[in-house]
Amino acid sequence: MNTLPKQNLQGRNSQLVEQEEQRRDLGFGTKLGDTYSRLINKDGSFNIFRKNGTFWDQLNLYNRLITIKWLPFLGLVLVFYLIANGFFAVVYMLAGAENLQSTSDQSFYGPFWKAFFFSSQTLTTVGYGHIAPTSFLTSIIAAFESMMGLLSFALVTGLLYGRFSRPSAHIKFSQRSVFAPYLDVNAWMFRIINARSHQLIDVLVEVTMSRMETKADGTKHRNYYSLSLERKKVTFFPTNWTLVHAITNKSPLHGCTPEDLAESDTEFLILLQAMDDTFSQVVHRRYSYRYDEVLWGHKFRPMFDSGQSGIVNLDLEKLDDTEEVELN
Amino acid sequence: MNTLPKQNLQGRNSQLVEQEEQRRDLGFGTKLGDTYSRLINKDGSFNIFRKNGTFWDQLNLYNRLITIKWLPFLGLVLVFYLIANGFFAVVYMLAGAENLQSTSDQSFYGPFWKAFFFSSQTLTTVGYGHIAPTSFLTSIIAAFESMMGLLSFALVTGLLYGRFSRPSAHIKFSQRSVFAPYLDVNAWMFRIINARSHQLIDVLVEVTMSRMETKADGTKHRNYYSLSLERKKVTFFPTNWTLVHAITNKSPLHGCTPEDLAESDTEFLILLQAMDDTFSQVVHRRYSYRYDEVLWGHKFRPMFDSGQSGIVNLDLEKLDDTEEVELN
Amino acid sequence: MNTLPKQNLQGRNSQLVEQEEQRRDLGFGTKLGDTYSRLINKDGSFNIFRKNGTFWDQLNLYNRLITIKWLPFLGLVLVFYLIANGFFAVVYMLAGAENLQSTSDQSFYGPFWKAFFFSSQTLTTVGYGHIAPTSFLTSIIAAFESMMGLLSFALVTGLLYGRFSRPSAHIKFSQRSVFAPYLDVNAWMFRIINARSHQLIDVLVEVTMSRMETKADGTKHRNYYSLSLERKKVTFFPTNWTLVHAITNKSPLHGCTPEDLAESDTEFLILLQAMDDTFSQVVHRRYSYRYDEVLWGHKFRPMFDSGQSGIVNLDLEKLDDTEEVELN
Amino acid sequence: MNTLPKQNLQGRNSQLVEQEEQRRDLGFGTKLGDTYSRLINKDGSFNIFRKNGTFWDQLNLYNRLITIKWLPFLGLVLVFYLIANGFFAVVYMLAGAENLQSTSDQSFYGPFWKAFFFSSQTLTTVGYGHIAPTSFLTSIIAAFESMMGLLSFALVTGLLYGRFSRPSAHIKFSQRSVFAPYLDVNAWMFRIINARSHQLIDVLVEVTMSRMETKADGTKHRNYYSLSLERKKVTFFPTNWTLVHAITNKSPLHGCTPEDLAESDTEFLILLQAMDDTFSQVVHRRYSYRYDEVLWGHKFRPMFDSGQSGIVNLDLEKLDDTEEVELN
Repeated sequence: MNTLPKQNLQGRNSQLVEQEEQRRDLGFGTKLGDTYSRLINKDGSFNIFRKNGTFWDQLNLYNRLITIKWLPFLGLVLVFYLIANGFFAVVYMLAGAENLQSTSDQSFYGPFWKAFFFSSQTLTTVGYGHIAPTSFLTSIIAAFESMMGLLSFALVTGLLYGRFSRPSAHIKFSQRSVFAPYLDVNAWMFRIINARSHQLIDVLVEVTMSRMETKADGTKHRNYYSLSLERKKVTFFPTNWTLVHAITNKSPLHGCTPEDLAESDTEFLILLQAMDDTFSQVVHRRYSYRYDEVLWGHKFRPMFDSGQSGIVNLDLEKLDDTEEVELN
Repeated sequence: MNTLPKQNLQGRNSQLVEQEEQRRDLGFGTKLGDTYSRLINKDGSFNIFRKNGTFWDQLNLYNRLITIKWLPFLGLVLVFYLIANGFFAVVYMLAGAENLQSTSDQSFYGPFWKAFFFSSQTLTTVGYGHIAPTSFLTSIIAAFESMMGLLSFALVTGLLYGRFSRPSAHIKFSQRSVFAPYLDVNAWMFRIINARSHQLIDVLVEVTMSRMETKADGTKHRNYYSLSLERKKVTFFPTNWTLVHAITNKSPLHGCTPEDLAESDTEFLILLQAMDDTFSQVVHRRYSYRYDEVLWGHKFRPMFDSGQSGIVNLDLEKLDDTEEVELN
Repeated sequence: MNTLPKQNLQGRNSQLVEQEEQRRDLGFGTKLGDTYSRLINKDGSFNIFRKNGTFWDQLNLYNRLITIKWLPFLGLVLVFYLIANGFFAVVYMLAGAENLQSTSDQSFYGPFWKAFFFSSQTLTTVGYGHIAPTSFLTSIIAAFESMMGLLSFALVTGLLYGRFSRPSAHIKFSQRSVFAPYLDVNAWMFRIINARSHQLIDVLVEVTMSRMETKADGTKHRNYYSLSLERKKVTFFPTNWTLVHAITNKSPLHGCTPEDLAESDTEFLILLQAMDDTFSQVVHRRYSYRYDEVLWGHKFRPMFDSGQSGIVNLDLEKLDDTEEVELN
Repeated sequence: MNTLPKQNLQGRNSQLVEQEEQRRDLGFGTKLGDTYSRLINKDGSFNIFRKNGTFWDQLNLYNRLITIKWLPFLGLVLVFYLIANGFFAVVYMLAGAENLQSTSDQSFYGPFWKAFFFSSQTLTTVGYGHIAPTSFLTSIIAAFESMMGLLSFALVTGLLYGRFSRPSAHIKFSQRSVFAPYLDVNAWMFRIINARSHQLIDVLVEVTMSRMETKADGTKHRNYYSLSLERKKVTFFPTNWTLVHAITNKSPLHGCTPEDLAESDTEFLILLQAMDDTFSQVVHRRYSYRYDEVLWGHKFRPMFDSGQSGIVNLDLEKLDDTEEVELN
């Protein structure tokens, strides 16, 4: 520990510190200020590349196996099953495939396949027994393999349950947001639906606008503005929900032109939180509209009508239906 | 991107925007204003029909398998088991049922049933081995089927656990709510019990009244009013709980007649939240009383008495016990 | 719907309604006012008897299987296993035990045990195959039993996981609470420890005093008072924690004698909430001290000392160590 | 119950009580005041030794099996498997190993290994059947063992799933914290990254400084001070995050020298809370920097640069990169 004169930490009242504490920051930091690229991808991930992580942290196996789609997942299970059986078949052959007794004549498909099928019957614990280990070595390998089989199976059970029980919300966002007239002003709007039939409750939406701004000294900084919404929370979410940011004179969008949005690399960052009614789990979704995903002078067409039966019909396909309209 | 003159977003101070922000909305929206039908069904689902969803979202398989009753669930498992075995029996027959070796004479029930029983012994990984695959083709099918068996079983394990561990509260609502005298005024009341013996804590109830109202211009709108409760939260819920909305001069029910409630299609929407003590899970319940499920001038009879032993007895069958009473 | 003149709900400003809204109630209700018995048992359950519930709700199978101790649980599993095998053994005998082929002579222990062991080998999917079904009937029963076996096993897996993952906190309360001197006044105190070695964080304690009071008109009511604590929340809970309610002139205990507590059937109700650090689950505990579980003029002895190594030693056995002391 | 004159609990207004209620305490208590040792270890556990706990509470089996690393865990499973098979092998030998029929000549590895392999085939429910129980005694043992096998397997499934689904955050803290210039003052800083690729949201950090202080009467007490942060919460955490406590004149670090920190045994206690985006689970982390883990006059080097592609590159290996700098 060095003892320079400056190491007495003389605190001081600082205006700059207080200003910095007020600055809104979602966590992207100021250093991203000089980058013209979207912050949040359409799937909700961040547009940032991470390097030099450790292998296991990068792989992040469990999360990946939980979040990949069903077809690749089942494919992986099958591939793993084939490789495991192939591996053990080779091990049994090294230990002497003739030490796998057969109650029937199976010589016609050769020792590898005999060992392979024996392995599959051991790994899955089917164990017909028409092929069975007779030597000490093949017996001990089989004992080990059956234990591995149980473990693998326990793993797959856990993964399947994890995949199923993972909190998820199939919320669909309209492909584009719009600038439309709203009451006696204009508003920026987008629309969401709950694509699934089970309920979400206490749905909460926050919108932050990010844009590049030039300071007096000519340096560029990415600034963040919270956009007020007509309604930021609903208790129930049975139909569609149009989120509305009215452009009053307090709005940071007040006075903007399409060119402004493009030049300042404007991006609307959306954070949605909801409660899944079946499992009482909180679900989060991220989404973003960039300046080129905004329609000027369009409004959303209604998505539902009351049928003859008196019951309201919601047509999920009309999510992206818009029509041109003149702005106020 | 078009550049009409109106695309400069001139913000303006707007009274209408502020009014709209104040309007109470549970998430049903204003468009439901012209429908005379209940909003929330007795089972807590919403009275809205959704069309044109994608197949998987409509099916919503996991949620459905988790929430259907036990008998249909077990029936589905049995049907799936029979179909799977039937399917594989046919596949084995195509591959040559004579390639399933038998250590005993089972010809008397024919090749299909031999293949069917072999399939069931493979799928469940019992694998007695008195029937066993001898050809390459039947062996590879059996290897695949046993893997499918493990996966299906993993799935059923996950489903069973999901069914069991799903947060649920068997809260029973009295069949009808009542208008009864309360202290020196009248009140709208309903009563709930915890039907199960395990505890719920921090039970919170919110009641919203929905009714159709006619504006000055003759258009009809569905409006929502929060009803204040004598007590909206209890820490413990060991006995019954009578929820009371006192009709003071601040109540939106002030001055109503039975005819008023019927004409305005009045519905009392109830949202209950509680904490399951065993699993520390939050549970939600929705319920609703429509205008024709309200008894005027009735009061609830007590549900418990202190026995000789000094311990309080709660009689769960008396939930719906009411008697006539004169209103204040 | 009857239309008496009184059915116009004239709301009125009511003082009584406002008073009732202020009254503290944990959820036990006013009706329990005339019972002299403890409200919360030592295990945290409520001292209330519930009758006439439906069979399944009373049984509450899953919760019971999750919360019973390990020995009865494993005993139940064993009994279920024996009964299931006994049942299927009888079914196989009805279908003809001679249709269970044997590759070895097992006649010496008779057809019932042959069927019983075959059943056990089917239910657990071991399926050695030295006993195997040969008739159509025994084959179909075995196919069904092996499916039942998988389901039962899935169930047990779910139950075991449920038992393990259930949020639980082994918090031990001192057997008695004490009245001891505290700073320049007296205080009511009790002491808790975390009996397990894994951490609890954000531990929050609330204490409510319940006592019977006689109104001016001679009727008895059970009233509830919140007791202020020196510290009601700690972030970490690595050692013991002595909860202290200082008896200042604002305390409802101000001026009480031991006789007062006994006569008014005083009970201290404790609600504890904590966060389990391993699973990030919220845990709740209820506890209660009745008037006869309070020591007057005793104080707790310290539970820890700093060893030579500089590391603090906490002796969990000293939880109930008290010594006499004169009150202020 | 004794009735000394002092047992009338005369409450009194007390300044000392009010002061005590104001004192900040994380839950370590005042008694730790005279110990010079770190409070929180680098792995987040507390530096406290607990003795005389009950065996099961000390063992805390489930938590330990959930939290140990993968290699020891799999090792334990293997050891348990070998011991269980060894145990049952001995039991079968006591019941007569000749009562395990063999369809092939396996005498060459003796009765123990025959019983051992039979046991392994029973425990895993493989059940080839080339070894099978023939006597009543061996049959009943095998029936019991196969049930135990299913239970053990259910247990391992639960443990594996518990290990996987346990909320965890691989947050890495910089090895040392620094005193660096910050705006027009100095600041104490440390830096964290999310080592895994899946997202954490709503990350919240609290820092408490603990130091030994000498009272007027010469006694030593450990006091706790909350340190204000430039930003204590971020919504997203995609890159690195430097936590900054600016040393203004309000900071408890105001005027400190390195010698002061060492003498007062200063420790910076950090509590981090975040929401895992995949499972919506809350995660907690504890960390601490002691006075000798602080670099004076060093600052962190940036961890990321914008590549040619416009996408930001975050280099996780640069977490501990600092360079010397002169303090303000």
